[in-house]
Amino acid sequence: MTSNTIDTLLDSHQQAHTEDLIEWLRIPSVSSDPKAKKEVREAGQWVADLLRNAGLQTEWIETQGHPLVYATTPPVPGAPVALVYGHYDVQPPEPLDLWDSPAFEPDIRDGNIYARGATDDKGQVLTHVQAVLRLLETGQPLPLQIKFLIEGEEEVGSENLERMLPELADKLACDVVVISDSSQFAPGQPAITYGLRGITTFELKVFGPSQDLHSGSFGGAVMNPGIALSKLIASMINDDGQIQLPGFYDDVQPLTDEERQQFASLPFEDAEFARSLGVAKLAGEKGYTTLERKWARPTFDVNGLTCGHQGPGAKTIIPATASAKLSFRLVPNQDPQKIAEALEAHVAQHTPVGVTTKITPDHGAPGMVANLKSPFIAAAQTALEAAFGKPPVLIREGGSIPIVQKFQETLGADCLLLGWGLNDDNAHSPNEKFCLADYHRGIKASAHLWQQIGSLNQNR
Amino acid sequence: MTSNTIDTLLDSHQQAHTEDLIEWLRIPSVSSDPKAKKEVREAGQWVADLLRNAGLQTEWIETQGHPLVYATTPPVPGAPVALVYGHYDVQPPEPLDLWDSPAFEPDIRDGNIYARGATDDKGQVLTHVQAVLRLLETGQPLPLQIKFLIEGEEEVGSENLERMLPELADKLACDVVVISDSSQFAPGQPAITYGLRGITTFELKVFGPSQDLHSGSFGGAVMNPGIALSKLIASMINDDGQIQLPGFYDDVQPLTDEERQQFASLPFEDAEFARSLGVAKLAGEKGYTTLERKWARPTFDVNGLTCGHQGPGAKTIIPATASAKLSFRLVPNQDPQKIAEALEAHVAQHTPVGVTTKITPDHGAPGMVANLKSPFIAAAQTALEAAFGKPPVLIREGGSIPIVQKFQETLGADCLLLGWGLNDDNAHSPNEKFCLADYHRGIKASAHLWQQIGSLNQNR
Repeated sequence: MTSNTIDTLLDSHQQAHTEDLIEWLRIPSVSSDPKAKKEVREAGQWVADLLRNAGLQTEWIETQGHPLVYATTPPVPGAPVALVYGHYDVQPPEPLDLWDSPAFEPDIRDGNIYARGATDDKGQVLTHVQAVLRLLETGQPLPLQIKFLIEGEEEVGSENLERMLPELADKLACDVVVISDSSQFAPGQPAITYGLRGITTFELKVFGPSQDLHSGSFGGAVMNPGIALSKLIASMINDDGQIQLPGFYDDVQPLTDEERQQFASLPFEDAEFARSLGVAKLAGEKGYTTLERKWARPTFDVNGLTCGHQGPGAKTIIPATASAKLSFRLVPNQDPQKIAEALEAHVAQHTPVGVTTKITPDHGAPGMVANLKSPFIAAAQTALEAAFGKPPVLIREGGSIPIVQKFQETLGADCLLLGWGLNDDNAHSPNEKFCLADYHRGIKASAHLWQQIGSLNQNR
Repeated sequence: MTSNTIDTLLDSHQQAHTEDLIEWLRIPSVSSDPKAKKEVREAGQWVADLLRNAGLQTEWIETQGHPLVYATTPPVPGAPVALVYGHYDVQPPEPLDLWDSPAFEPDIRDGNIYARGATDDKGQVLTHVQAVLRLLETGQPLPLQIKFLIEGEEEVGSENLERMLPELADKLACDVVVISDSSQFAPGQPAITYGLRGITTFELKVFGPSQDLHSGSFGGAVMNPGIALSKLIASMINDDGQIQLPGFYDDVQPLTDEERQQFASLPFEDAEFARSLGVAKLAGEKGYTTLERKWARPTFDVNGLTCGHQGPGAKTIIPATASAKLSFRLVPNQDPQKIAEALEAHVAQHTPVGVTTKITPDHGAPGMVANLKSPFIAAAQTALEAAFGKPPVLIREGGSIPIVQKFQETLGADCLLLGWGLNDDNAHSPNEKFCLADYHRGIKASAHLWQQIGSLNQNR
């Protein structure tokens, strides 16, 4: 099929493609919420049905947590195999009162669709499903075999998928993994993301007196857990934004001069970026540009703090406990396990007298950098240019897709991270959105990509 | 009446006295909870009715907040006037799940009555009401005039009473103020508390990005409000437990050598005290004993922390805001207003680049030290020895009764702080309790006190 035939075909389905997305976004599949188990399965079932009804051989793979949806088109002898990976689970919608329209009642405003999961990741993974379905409907055989793996635990660390990956290796065997769960560099400027940061998250809990104490009768006699927690957190990062855990930077794979030059060549304005985030000034590790800090340098963040009295008015107590949710973003070659040990050591060394601490690791994954020499990158460059009318730039992304590095390891396949989203899509925030034009461009880019990879192969 | 007649009379009413207390404790009069307005008034009404029905001239004095209950016995020409001050409001009961029996369903176990307000202050102020009622029932005239002022905002700073004190000065005119809202030194070892710490409380809020951000895509680009708050709190107190606000200790009235010797002479075991609080080691300002630190040195405490994700699981965000509830306990001669200015200055100087802060003062009150030469102290010593069978020790208390210092100022009266409670009564904590034996001893001590003060006067 020519590029034009494909575009015309897809344009004629825009309305239906949007309606499908709205339907999927209505399902509140919050994987971290134990009470949402049913809704999470429902969201998986929805996309499984879509694939099955289109004739793909579809499987519902149970895990110890939320199920995996697997589907495949027929094998094409001698042709490459592509695996599309995405997730049907979403982040919690809280704080609810900051949403302009309810998180699970998709609302279209100014060409954007607003809902939790719109861009992360239902909207993006659905582009590949739609593209494959339309191509199949033409009755012509696909020039390659396409497999789908859509999971329900990406937002909670993909631990079950990771665990099962070795036994699923044969089923998932492929030449290239295609993932759309990231962003364009700028509106209308597509990008191929060749690097991701890793992550490791923890809960740090501080234990003081056996119960809350009157701060008058007991203040001055015992260590205050809220103060102890604050001192521990403060000790983890200095005023230059450098993380103080022992050996934290030892394994960091430094940016190459080429990369730093390439990043510097991208159109990016600190002042404008700060404005877009609502801060007067950006901040972070000394000696690095903003793009370097957010894409390719490790970071430390407090994700939450809980301690003592949080209601209205004053309650003059020494709280019995204090806890923090902590996350570290890692770069390629940093080992989450080593970071966990460094945190243990740092906390043990800095815990004030009079309190005890407990660290509970949540999930971790190393960062990755894709092989820039992969022929599939060239294919993607052609496909994205065809759909977006502009050649893509090569970028890295600060977020983590823990499973990607595992795919590289277990399947020995190249990974293409093709993001259709935008940096201001509010993934993980209130008013998450996805630009509908990008949704439809993503579907086109996906369709072109399959053609490109197919032809690529014929030239092998 | 002889000491014995009084005791016999009061013993015969123990059952009724306990039932009254249970009734009062059932009313959830949480003054800091805007939703409990009705219940708070109900608790005031309950004690007002008790006093009115006993024939005291009783008034219901409206304020901008919760009402004051005022009642008085007839004037006794030439005899002294005593003012009993207490409060019918209570602390919030949270965390509810840590109570062994519901906070507002009084439960008697092992000779203690468990309920929010049992010791702070319903149980303690009620001892004086019961004593006066029983004495009046004998038909004999009291040897002095006794006034009651029972308020509903002590747990939120007594601001309305403070504001109205000047206009109430004539009504409240007295020679001595008697307050039971503190503790014995040890079980069965009564004490006269001659000093209180002051207090000043604040909410410190840190503002970062205009909304929560994905910690992957944005981590490293902006200052994390949770980290900024932790660094601010950590900067307020050093590892020797010394508060770092500019000029914080400038006005501190130091302990006299006599006081330090007297405190040192009291039976007190750090190790045993630590065990009772469930901590491995006590902590606090370097260079002072535990009693000095908790009674007569200023302190800094975090009462609560709120930031970002607090639910189950991980949520990898950079929170938009973080806030802390902070309290400082002050000693005599420290000015809450000056401390508030010092906090403003310190926070302004230490706020990290990339966030803004806002400090909201809640309430404040200076500390006080009573006049040890007061003849009423001698009267109290006799009365307490009669009721407890042991002479009281002279101590100070780390808690704050903001209004006490105002009484001294406005009424020019001595203040007697006669605590019937115990240090492990869990005031402000789950499972607050009051020992019923102490409740009944307190009623006796009160009855004896009125006799003593009366006779005191006849010797004038």
